Amino acid sequence: MSFNTFGKFFRFTSWGESHGPAIGCIIDGCPPLIQLKEQDIQKELDKRKPGQSKFTTQRKESDKVEILSGVFEGRTTGTPISMIIYNEDMRSKDYKNIKNKFRPGHADFTYFKKYGIRDYRGGGRSSARETAARVAAGAVAKVVLEKKLGKKFKVTGAVTQLGILGCDTNQWNDKIISKNPFFCPDKSMIKIWEKYLLGIRKSGSSCGAIIQIRARGVPAGLGAPIYSKLDSDIALGLMSINAVKGVNIGAGMYSAQLSGEQNSDEISQRGKTLKFNSNNAGGILGGISTGQEIVVSFAVKPTSSILTTRKTIDKFGKNTTISVKGRHDPCVGIRAVPIGEAMINCIILDHYLMNKAQCG
Amino acid sequence: MSFNTFGKFFRFTSWGESHGPAIGCIIDGCPPLIQLKEQDIQKELDKRKPGQSKFTTQRKESDKVEILSGVFEGRTTGTPISMIIYNEDMRSKDYKNIKNKFRPGHADFTYFKKYGIRDYRGGGRSSARETAARVAAGAVAKVVLEKKLGKKFKVTGAVTQLGILGCDTNQWNDKIISKNPFFCPDKSMIKIWEKYLLGIRKSGSSCGAIIQIRARGVPAGLGAPIYSKLDSDIALGLMSINAVKGVNIGAGMYSAQLSGEQNSDEISQRGKTLKFNSNNAGGILGGISTGQEIVVSFAVKPTSSILTTRKTIDKFGKNTTISVKGRHDPCVGIRAVPIGEAMINCIILDHYLMNKAQCG
Amino acid sequence: MSFNTFGKFFRFTSWGESHGPAIGCIIDGCPPLIQLKEQDIQKELDKRKPGQSKFTTQRKESDKVEILSGVFEGRTTGTPISMIIYNEDMRSKDYKNIKNKFRPGHADFTYFKKYGIRDYRGGGRSSARETAARVAAGAVAKVVLEKKLGKKFKVTGAVTQLGILGCDTNQWNDKIISKNPFFCPDKSMIKIWEKYLLGIRKSGSSCGAIIQIRARGVPAGLGAPIYSKLDSDIALGLMSINAVKGVNIGAGMYSAQLSGEQNSDEISQRGKTLKFNSNNAGGILGGISTGQEIVVSFAVKPTSSILTTRKTIDKFGKNTTISVKGRHDPCVGIRAVPIGEAMINCIILDHYLMNKAQCG
Amino acid sequence: MSFNTFGKFFRFTSWGESHGPAIGCIIDGCPPLIQLKEQDIQKELDKRKPGQSKFTTQRKESDKVEILSGVFEGRTTGTPISMIIYNEDMRSKDYKNIKNKFRPGHADFTYFKKYGIRDYRGGGRSSARETAARVAAGAVAKVVLEKKLGKKFKVTGAVTQLGILGCDTNQWNDKIISKNPFFCPDKSMIKIWEKYLLGIRKSGSSCGAIIQIRARGVPAGLGAPIYSKLDSDIALGLMSINAVKGVNIGAGMYSAQLSGEQNSDEISQRGKTLKFNSNNAGGILGGISTGQEIVVSFAVKPTSSILTTRKTIDKFGKNTTISVKGRHDPCVGIRAVPIGEAMINCIILDHYLMNKAQCG
Repeated sequence: MSFNTFGKFFRFTSWGESHGPAIGCIIDGCPPLIQLKEQDIQKELDKRKPGQSKFTTQRKESDKVEILSGVFEGRTTGTPISMIIYNEDMRSKDYKNIKNKFRPGHADFTYFKKYGIRDYRGGGRSSARETAARVAAGAVAKVVLEKKLGKKFKVTGAVTQLGILGCDTNQWNDKIISKNPFFCPDKSMIKIWEKYLLGIRKSGSSCGAIIQIRARGVPAGLGAPIYSKLDSDIALGLMSINAVKGVNIGAGMYSAQLSGEQNSDEISQRGKTLKFNSNNAGGILGGISTGQEIVVSFAVKPTSSILTTRKTIDKFGKNTTISVKGRHDPCVGIRAVPIGEAMINCIILDHYLMNKAQCG
Repeated sequence: MSFNTFGKFFRFTSWGESHGPAIGCIIDGCPPLIQLKEQDIQKELDKRKPGQSKFTTQRKESDKVEILSGVFEGRTTGTPISMIIYNEDMRSKDYKNIKNKFRPGHADFTYFKKYGIRDYRGGGRSSARETAARVAAGAVAKVVLEKKLGKKFKVTGAVTQLGILGCDTNQWNDKIISKNPFFCPDKSMIKIWEKYLLGIRKSGSSCGAIIQIRARGVPAGLGAPIYSKLDSDIALGLMSINAVKGVNIGAGMYSAQLSGEQNSDEISQRGKTLKFNSNNAGGILGGISTGQEIVVSFAVKPTSSILTTRKTIDKFGKNTTISVKGRHDPCVGIRAVPIGEAMINCIILDHYLMNKAQCG
Repeated sequence: MSFNTFGKFFRFTSWGESHGPAIGCIIDGCPPLIQLKEQDIQKELDKRKPGQSKFTTQRKESDKVEILSGVFEGRTTGTPISMIIYNEDMRSKDYKNIKNKFRPGHADFTYFKKYGIRDYRGGGRSSARETAARVAAGAVAKVVLEKKLGKKFKVTGAVTQLGILGCDTNQWNDKIISKNPFFCPDKSMIKIWEKYLLGIRKSGSSCGAIIQIRARGVPAGLGAPIYSKLDSDIALGLMSINAVKGVNIGAGMYSAQLSGEQNSDEISQRGKTLKFNSNNAGGILGGISTGQEIVVSFAVKPTSSILTTRKTIDKFGKNTTISVKGRHDPCVGIRAVPIGEAMINCIILDHYLMNKAQCG
Repeated sequence: MSFNTFGKFFRFTSWGESHGPAIGCIIDGCPPLIQLKEQDIQKELDKRKPGQSKFTTQRKESDKVEILSGVFEGRTTGTPISMIIYNEDMRSKDYKNIKNKFRPGHADFTYFKKYGIRDYRGGGRSSARETAARVAAGAVAKVVLEKKLGKKFKVTGAVTQLGILGCDTNQWNDKIISKNPFFCPDKSMIKIWEKYLLGIRKSGSSCGAIIQIRARGVPAGLGAPIYSKLDSDIALGLMSINAVKGVNIGAGMYSAQLSGEQNSDEISQRGKTLKFNSNNAGGILGGISTGQEIVVSFAVKPTSSILTTRKTIDKFGKNTTISVKGRHDPCVGIRAVPIGEAMINCIILDHYLMNKAQCG
């Protein structure tokens, strides 16, 4: 069933609403004997934390995580790891004026249609606040994978397109990414994006983004040929992030335009090592990792809550309009970078453990 | 776990290899009291059947399905529906010369890396032959949904881009789709595509394709806000089809380039009915159906097995080359249309039943 | 995988160790629009609470539950219900002297063998403290079922055998059960049991118990014919309670001794109603409820931690002895009554929702 | 979900009705590179096969199994193993006269209540014929375990009580079991049981049985502390067998009568080996295997279909009577021995693979 659970072997179940007392998650299936500190998790949460620049939401949250179970004397015990993050700065009254309106582009209408009840305070369960729980789970997965796969293993995400402006992914530089507010990997674009996004923010509008995640040091052989494919699980995981509308593996949608000669990556032996001569596959063939870098991308739609007035209806069926006052995040896609990284970490660990069960 | 199972409530588990005696699937969770005949399933399988035109694989398979359980006196009983399709025309000897080679673009290398053993005859489990089982399952889902949702419900797929040539999706015509060998929905492109694909076939090359699936008559409220989202399950299901590298929901990857005003679909009340003024969301908001048409697309990479000679290595680590002799399918994407339809039918039924369990 | 999850449609995942900061659970799959208050849950927890009589453990816990998510304006929203109970009175130092010893009858040795690490403070995850989370989940299930099935629905448990002393189940009286410290349903046995148990307590020994759970007002048709049988799920759920070693459905193990004529319950029509002339089946035939009272029993082994000195070894492989100083619970079986009730409530709701998904 | 699936890591999904064309199962999660022949499976099926003595059902079935997938050149490939057994001797007309009657003790009424449709031919899906699929799955599990755990691993079942007549389990002799039609492990009881059962058969009645399963060579550390306990999974698996009404682990229900001193198994070090001084736990503590012999028992109720006339009603609500003509099996419990063995093999392998995923 797993309505609120992600993963099969390394599973996390998240809970909590944006304006309830707290949010959190439980990890089930974390291997024992792994050294784990709250600081390992806090570090990743801090990357996602709102209010860090003028380009993201101004909601203030310290997002401090507490580990409530599953760790004893500094090491995991194999039991569920429960983590909690208390909500702060929950200005519920901000939502009073939109209590009965369905915000365009949000889950307000659909959630109400399904359940017949709606927590109108900031989207409730549908809020992107839930993603903090994923980042916490991903941080644990990262610690486990670094122990199991060694230092060559690394997952890094970046924004590769901001609205209509792409960057040159050949200029990708890990060190640049963490040093600019856009997680931009291409130094030459930072100033251009800054100007572009300031303009969007001032006009009260918003833009979308494309995020690329790269995973290095993943061994060949993770995945499955049919329904637990590494790539289909990645599609599941990334598409489950709020506002994501598209997922590409390697060449992705673009592969439709390639010829068979251009697309399929030739193989050659160099000394003792098998090498692929290109990586259109994004490191995954037939649902199983090739040992190359895993490269995946996803698109985040533009922020739906904007200052511009939009037509909508209220829950009584009356036509009305809506616009955001106050907080406004011109590009929600930026903060999706650590979330995407977290999902990829979780998925790789899930498949790593799956391989143990299948072939061990 | 579900290594070979798809779905949560309406589940199918497929089995079989391309060159074994048979393939098949078991459906678990089909509601009782639904009238079901083998012909309902055969009809869908015939759409996927190879060897129907010069543009698809020449392997001859009658793909005749038999129902072995779960149906009594013409109606489903709520017990597992086991379906079997015997393999024919298994020219295993065709594969002798590539027995020890890893075909570029195929799962040969990765499968071997994972399991340490490989059925080299046509890809074994990794072969697209498995998709016949999905089409059979989808046919059952379709019958159930037509009973539960009525005649307004309909899932239709089409090829909307063939290699570098797109079609005009505004010209989409259901009646055209079934009357051309490309499942092309736009009458004006058929001749152009035919000439284009003949050229590719003659040159021994291949091209990719984009397939769009539309589902009409899906009620609002199917899905879930977080980890059983309708769209993330669609991404899972479509990405699990062989050779698929990208999935879009509505505007998909393109939504990154839109502004908030362009992208989020405004809502208005017209008489007693709520209407969306556009459908960039592809009929899904916050993981839950809006009641609009569901519109999703996916990209199939070009056929990897081509007449052109390609570099690769054998399993002993020697550099070598490979090329296909004989059978050659210039665009595997075409036959993905009924497979995509089948997956969408299964996913919608799965969520329909999930709603009964969650809110019933 | 569900290492720490119980249920399929109404699922709860528990977390926490006996001597960590807190324990809790997340319920996933609770239907929306159900009125739910913390007090509904507290009431059930209070029945299980330790330290209520001299016959149960003297650990003092107020076991106050907090709902952290899933309830909005007094009603469930269909999102995960997270509940937390902070631990109090965690005298970890009590466990210092048994830190390196494997207590006979406990999971100390086996847990260590599996995970290679052990939280020696009171059993950690293996402690019966975890059952408070189950009772909380069961309380929610009870509230939902009372709304869905009406007031005729009721689950009641009682101790029907205390050590070597059985009671007369024909004298079962719901009102008696809650008014004695043994959950004894047969008024005539209370004094006898009291004397018996005082003797065991004084001698530093312990005894086992048999608990019977009866569920009235369960409609016919819940369950499944094969692997989601109502009775096999009950066996799973009850056997998962700490210290349980046997489970009976209806006549249970005793049915082996009956003849076909004695055992199978004849059916007759009385007016408009189908009646069974007996209930050896315990209300379940072929894995599906008959509409009769569901009657199940389970045996709890005697408390393993006793004042009597016992032989064991330490984790360095040295022979040694062990005995409990201080706290000592002469019959852990007594407190299993509300736990068994909770499990049955959860299982019935799970199957109620399953039926909606399967036949809805 | 898993309405017709058993297991988490080594999973089998069974399908088929007693009077359909065939039954079968799919195993998902079988490790690759295991040598497997149809004969390995046939051997176990032959132990369960009906019609082998005058003490079991006279239905004639050769129960010949075919492997349709998952095995290549004599070894498993890690893909689903599909097995099929065609039904023979399906005298459906035998059932015409009971078509509209609900047989007491059978699932006829409850199945109809749930699904609203019933395959009246021999119970359809509720028939014990389904257990052949389990035996096939168990045979595969056995082959895998013998490779993984070595020759010291062995699962053996026996009837330890036939109706009112128990045997002396201290006289248990593996060699005796396979040489008598009752799977009796105690040589001295064979003649007595034979006479007893002949009397029951002649009188047209039936009796129940208790079956004990012993598993040797199971390493310590298999299981989990809470919801994937080895013992709760055993309870689930055994209670899911048709006609089973009770399950005991080790001392089982009897443990309620023991004192703490009698029950909990003391531990001692003998040389390099940890030893338990007794085995009331049945080889499982806190849900995890101790390394001792695993000892479990289950009760099978007496055959419900007997020659004696029984009261019942028909589906139109009329009182009527029913009695079996022709085939009559005086003790269905006997044939439960290989089924119980199969379930235990499957469960142990499931937990063996689970440990790889959890701790690997």
